[in-house]
Amino acid sequence: MRAVFHIIGVGPGDPELVTLRAARILGTAAVFAAFAKRGRAGNARTIATPHLNPAGKELRFDYPYTTDMPVQDPRYSEAMSAFYDSCAIAIATHLDAGSDVVLLCEGDPFLYGSAMYLFDRLRNTHRVEVTPGITAMAGCWSRAGAPMVHGDDILTVLPATLPAEALADALRLGQAAVVMKLGRNLPKLRAVLDELGLTERAIYAERGTMPEEQILPLIQRDNSPAPYFALVLIPGRRGVR
Amino acid sequence: MRAVFHIIGVGPGDPELVTLRAARILGTAAVFAAFAKRGRAGNARTIATPHLNPAGKELRFDYPYTTDMPVQDPRYSEAMSAFYDSCAIAIATHLDAGSDVVLLCEGDPFLYGSAMYLFDRLRNTHRVEVTPGITAMAGCWSRAGAPMVHGDDILTVLPATLPAEALADALRLGQAAVVMKLGRNLPKLRAVLDELGLTERAIYAERGTMPEEQILPLIQRDNSPAPYFALVLIPGRRGVR
Repeated sequence: MRAVFHIIGVGPGDPELVTLRAARILGTAAVFAAFAKRGRAGNARTIATPHLNPAGKELRFDYPYTTDMPVQDPRYSEAMSAFYDSCAIAIATHLDAGSDVVLLCEGDPFLYGSAMYLFDRLRNTHRVEVTPGITAMAGCWSRAGAPMVHGDDILTVLPATLPAEALADALRLGQAAVVMKLGRNLPKLRAVLDELGLTERAIYAERGTMPEEQILPLIQRDNSPAPYFALVLIPGRRGVR
Repeated sequence: MRAVFHIIGVGPGDPELVTLRAARILGTAAVFAAFAKRGRAGNARTIATPHLNPAGKELRFDYPYTTDMPVQDPRYSEAMSAFYDSCAIAIATHLDAGSDVVLLCEGDPFLYGSAMYLFDRLRNTHRVEVTPGITAMAGCWSRAGAPMVHGDDILTVLPATLPAEALADALRLGQAAVVMKLGRNLPKLRAVLDELGLTERAIYAERGTMPEEQILPLIQRDNSPAPYFALVLIPGRRGVR
């Protein structure tokens, strides 16, 4: 049996929203790793903490300092690519020595997760298993009491980092939508939603399912920067009976 | 403390993909209910079985016979509305007698779930708590080894029950997509994907994470009817490094 690289979704924040499968694998993890900003615990690591094997060896994958560099700058993608290469090598070293490795991912690993870059690097040479997680958006719409899509509704999931025009094109359908990665993009998004007449339906959600959770109508939220992981929910048709 | 109506997502199929929270609530459920086709066990009930309180009282919510009626027929929505009214009354009776009630939902309750109709009927009169679940699509893309959305990608989730033209409009962006509710709609969907040049990227997934799971390139799947809950994944950009 070859060692397994486990990519584990740990869900949106509440440690009780990990799956039984995730808890089982975390509880026996000989080696575990998570991405984080330098100097921060990292959300995935924090969520996983109560479930982790206390005897497990921890690898820290600190993102390189690239915040001052625009993502379009080729140096940004070069730095990130070299970073993911080094993470993949660190993991492969443990796998090749016969030890399983667990990568902790907030939400679901294959929905805007950094884990995908390591999956792509290791899938052809090692045994990789992916455990899905509760997405941040599902955590938020459950807590918001916001049924999202009924019957023939369409759901669009998109990042607020897109240019205003691309946001408007994608949201013009006017059906259900989730806008991720808010951060400093809230004023831009709000202008688009205002133009499309969607602001009144929109719900702002920050740290959903965590103790610091903030969920309120977007109309009550000011334009100050939001956390990167905050999102806006636009539920589909309401009052469908 | 008023009794709680718990709406619980039990995930895509593998009973180990329920959350710790769901397992805790199922294990102590005094009354539980699930939707099912008449004469069938129902997916949600089957997934929940190993976790359910054996002493719990079971309510069965059998969908009315409406399969011969087109969903556009007003008699269809009347029959369904009366059915959901009767389910809500059955639940409210137990809540008003002081007993919590647990409704089992496959996948996530607020993503195309019948539970939304009961949530809407009871939210203003009773205490309702929603526990998110792993979606069928996340179960399938994890098992398929198909990273879905990177960076600025947009994900569109839509039902195959839409007319061909509406499917084409929504898929024309050509980014990541999940087409749900395949059933008898596979030939129609395939024609749309062929026209848009998306067939080669498409993955067919049926009963993902269950023992009978079938996941294969769409190009290898014939046009015979699929289960209603089968879906097609169209991953976004590949090979992003």
